Amino acid sequence: MLKSFDEAITEAQRLTDAALRRLIPESEAPEARVFEAMRYSTLAGGKRLRPFLVIACADLFNVSRECSERVAAAVEMVHTYSLIHDDLPAMDDDDLRRGMPTCHKQFDEATAILAGDALLTLAFEVLAEDKTHRQAEVRSELVLEMAKAIGARGMVGGQMLDIWAETHALDVPEITRLQRMKTGALIAYSCAAGAILGRADEHQRQLLSAYANNIGLAFQIADDLLDISATPEEMGKATGKDADAGKATFVSLLGVERARDQAMILVDQATKYLEIFGEKGNILRDLAKFVVERRS
Amino acid sequence: MLKSFDEAITEAQRLTDAALRRLIPESEAPEARVFEAMRYSTLAGGKRLRPFLVIACADLFNVSRECSERVAAAVEMVHTYSLIHDDLPAMDDDDLRRGMPTCHKQFDEATAILAGDALLTLAFEVLAEDKTHRQAEVRSELVLEMAKAIGARGMVGGQMLDIWAETHALDVPEITRLQRMKTGALIAYSCAAGAILGRADEHQRQLLSAYANNIGLAFQIADDLLDISATPEEMGKATGKDADAGKATFVSLLGVERARDQAMILVDQATKYLEIFGEKGNILRDLAKFVVERRS
Repeated sequence: MLKSFDEAITEAQRLTDAALRRLIPESEAPEARVFEAMRYSTLAGGKRLRPFLVIACADLFNVSRECSERVAAAVEMVHTYSLIHDDLPAMDDDDLRRGMPTCHKQFDEATAILAGDALLTLAFEVLAEDKTHRQAEVRSELVLEMAKAIGARGMVGGQMLDIWAETHALDVPEITRLQRMKTGALIAYSCAAGAILGRADEHQRQLLSAYANNIGLAFQIADDLLDISATPEEMGKATGKDADAGKATFVSLLGVERARDQAMILVDQATKYLEIFGEKGNILRDLAKFVVERRS
Repeated sequence: MLKSFDEAITEAQRLTDAALRRLIPESEAPEARVFEAMRYSTLAGGKRLRPFLVIACADLFNVSRECSERVAAAVEMVHTYSLIHDDLPAMDDDDLRRGMPTCHKQFDEATAILAGDALLTLAFEVLAEDKTHRQAEVRSELVLEMAKAIGARGMVGGQMLDIWAETHALDVPEITRLQRMKTGALIAYSCAAGAILGRADEHQRQLLSAYANNIGLAFQIADDLLDISATPEEMGKATGKDADAGKATFVSLLGVERARDQAMILVDQATKYLEIFGEKGNILRDLAKFVVERRS
């Protein structure tokens, strides 16, 4: 029997949390503080959208959960590291994340920098371990594609671009590129990782990649919409910061109506790419809708 | 004909620099600043001790230079990322590195954090690429052992421990553990990577690992000695900071004489592990001596 979307996302959250707890040990050593900070920030909840994408895409190819939950945890480690570093005073200087004090507020700046570094490193360790996949070819590809997605040509470059955008007016193509790098690349990797684990053929990979690019952008537009409509309590973080800083967003450039329309079009297209997967693609179809309909 | 030590280290520096220039592209994009910072900090010179170890160990097994120079560059990227982050105001707050302004001084803190993150990520990308080794098994092992060496149980944990040591008095076993993690782990990885590339057998690996552990510790003792005897100009960075901060070092705990003796004993032992490599081990023998006899 096919699971409902709610059951599937709850299960993905449970698997990811359990894997994270297992993979980030508690420590009694004098350097325990870095492990505490790693656990604090990764286990603070969150939607677990990216891990869910890994697991749901891997499920299309009947990948064992022992494999996909490890990759899901690695992706969440990378996402969390990026949040920890982005929240630092020298970057976005945020005090609140997932409804809790940010890592550098709860611990200190040095610990936050190191916890981010260690999470990024641990993610690669997990991907490269035998347990993640018995074929070294698969592990090596998981590492390579992750590194490409999150480095200076991907996520980190997107964050640099975001800082640049504080003093430059971006147009829609520029902001699309920024978001593809800053948030889209890791979302796309999450889907790609499921396909890599599943040894998907080229055609299947391209379709999942197109799906991922669409929902990545839709996710960001939804985020911009929530940023002006939701409260900090609902979001668990500061809202309205982009607008206050006069920063261009999809919403400021397109207006609320057109931005909302654009997100719906992207989601509609995204689901079309799933046709070859038949009923098995239902969870990913629901997920695409969830991305734009979520309230936080 | 066997090369002299001076020729060998100069060649390793040249190969590493060329590989770094090739692997860290220049960019015209708006996010170019992060690439500039990556190039600035990696191409600022330095002894290139770790890349030299990679190449010299790989040479024992006749690994092609096209492979070993890439791994050497990856190791130097990781070393540089660790320096960039350690120099940040929230960490050691250093203004000078390799005789030049530190990354956050030359650029800004946000750029320095991102450049470090991107270098760490790029190192893993380079290790996982086909060009590094045709066998995925080798690439995957290079990634795995790197991640283990530099994460919370290795280099990053060592840095956390170093911060902890600011408020705790360490004894010799504790400081040995700290240094094994903070600087020893990446030095040991540099040797291990050569052996992995060369598909060395278990016995050869163990000997190289013992060699690496000894010179890693000897290197740190030599560093502590230079920290009290060399000038900032000679070292290209601030000196005497540990003593000023009342931090325990091998020299403060053992005294200059015993520390120097200890370093010599470690180097002497290190060279013994190289016996099975015969004449081919000469470069590594000279390197062990260089580690304790260097003037900066």
